[in-house]
Amino acid sequence: MPKAVPSFAEAGSVKTSSHRGKVWLVGAGPGDPELLTVKAVNRLRCADVVLHDALVPREVLALAPSLARIVNVGKRCGQKHITQREINNLLVTLAKDGNNVVRLKSGDPFVFGRGGEEVDALQRADVEVEVVPGITAAIAAAAAAKVALTDRRCAQQLLLVSAHHAPEKTFSSQWEGLTSSNTTIVVYMPGQAEQVATKLLQAGMEEKTPCLMISRISQADEQRFQTTLADLSQAPLLPPPVLLIAGATIRF
Amino acid sequence: MPKAVPSFAEAGSVKTSSHRGKVWLVGAGPGDPELLTVKAVNRLRCADVVLHDALVPREVLALAPSLARIVNVGKRCGQKHITQREINNLLVTLAKDGNNVVRLKSGDPFVFGRGGEEVDALQRADVEVEVVPGITAAIAAAAAAKVALTDRRCAQQLLLVSAHHAPEKTFSSQWEGLTSSNTTIVVYMPGQAEQVATKLLQAGMEEKTPCLMISRISQADEQRFQTTLADLSQAPLLPPPVLLIAGATIRF
Repeated sequence: MPKAVPSFAEAGSVKTSSHRGKVWLVGAGPGDPELLTVKAVNRLRCADVVLHDALVPREVLALAPSLARIVNVGKRCGQKHITQREINNLLVTLAKDGNNVVRLKSGDPFVFGRGGEEVDALQRADVEVEVVPGITAAIAAAAAAKVALTDRRCAQQLLLVSAHHAPEKTFSSQWEGLTSSNTTIVVYMPGQAEQVATKLLQAGMEEKTPCLMISRISQADEQRFQTTLADLSQAPLLPPPVLLIAGATIRF
Repeated sequence: MPKAVPSFAEAGSVKTSSHRGKVWLVGAGPGDPELLTVKAVNRLRCADVVLHDALVPREVLALAPSLARIVNVGKRCGQKHITQREINNLLVTLAKDGNNVVRLKSGDPFVFGRGGEEVDALQRADVEVEVVPGITAAIAAAAAAKVALTDRRCAQQLLLVSAHHAPEKTFSSQWEGLTSSNTTIVVYMPGQAEQVATKLLQAGMEEKTPCLMISRISQADEQRFQTTLADLSQAPLLPPPVLLIAGATIRF
């Protein structure tokens, strides 16, 4: 059952005890609760507090105990904007108050997830932290679409990039040399199809490269759109989150 | 409980029925049964036949029903060498005989796993196939070592490569341009430390780049060795499977 989401202020004083708390950074995968790892489910079931990204669905949060506090610290929560520093501080405070804290992140904590920053903050504060990996969007999308990410016949390497917040200058230049025909490129949060198409073409990727856009991977309303890089700019605007796979393993 | 492993010949005639079978390509993750997805566990529990890689541990295979046939089709099974074509044919035959077949692959089926070839063969034979993603070694290793794979402060992209079976010529040339300081490189099956170090240096990676080798990720005998690219050639030989992470997110 979905649980009420307490306010940010409430979460800081959930539980006080003399035992030391701990933080688990847990990957929630793409959304489908069946794509959580067994370990993620087990840690969720022992949580006193769950701090989650906006994209984690209610069905996943419902795995936490009914008495656990569930706090949305996502960037899209529509309320007060919570900075990364505030999230770090909240994790430290909750753990030092003796809580078992699950920091639940979409996909995997260490792939475009800012998990590194949270681990740093926790270790600096001498708070015990453990990381539970999750199915990152690229891997979930490939499984859903039955498209390999590497294939010894045509794609010997895999590059994961994000178009989100990438400075214009590094965005394309860093992709140059990566766009050989034996590399599958996955773009997280590709943004406007026209922009990402231009950047991939500028980086030297061939026009005929097959492209697959996948929206809301593993959710009931998942959508896919398949095209070539030449025609990618005409792709429809799909509901976020969206992922773009470009490479020879995508067949028509 | 571990189950007896039947011979290759036996497996082809496990079950005959009039209903159509199906194949699930399932990622087994790095080895720890807790790192299977819930979906992988559910599919294993319904399997009539499990065809597995050599690296999948007994604790994972034990999740299959006690009456399921468990077949090791791994390259290290020490018996008759089984080709990829034979595995493809076996999957088709078993499914057409009406079996629920789980093809259990270490890590994720689509990341250095030949899942693409198996999907192709099954679709050509008009056999229904579904893919269940798994935690690939790079992501499992990062979680175990608490090392981020991307970090907006220092590593905006992630490249996964394999040194196994890569022709000498493409091996280094394809990595050139990838070795900018903002890319984390993960090398699957890096082989001899000296060779891979030479190749990364030739590709332009800096000598000071931190490197982490991880052996038998998530297993009881997991080992890690941290160094720099300059000193990587002196790394000890660790028990396989080994993974190498090179990049700025590894701290000392």
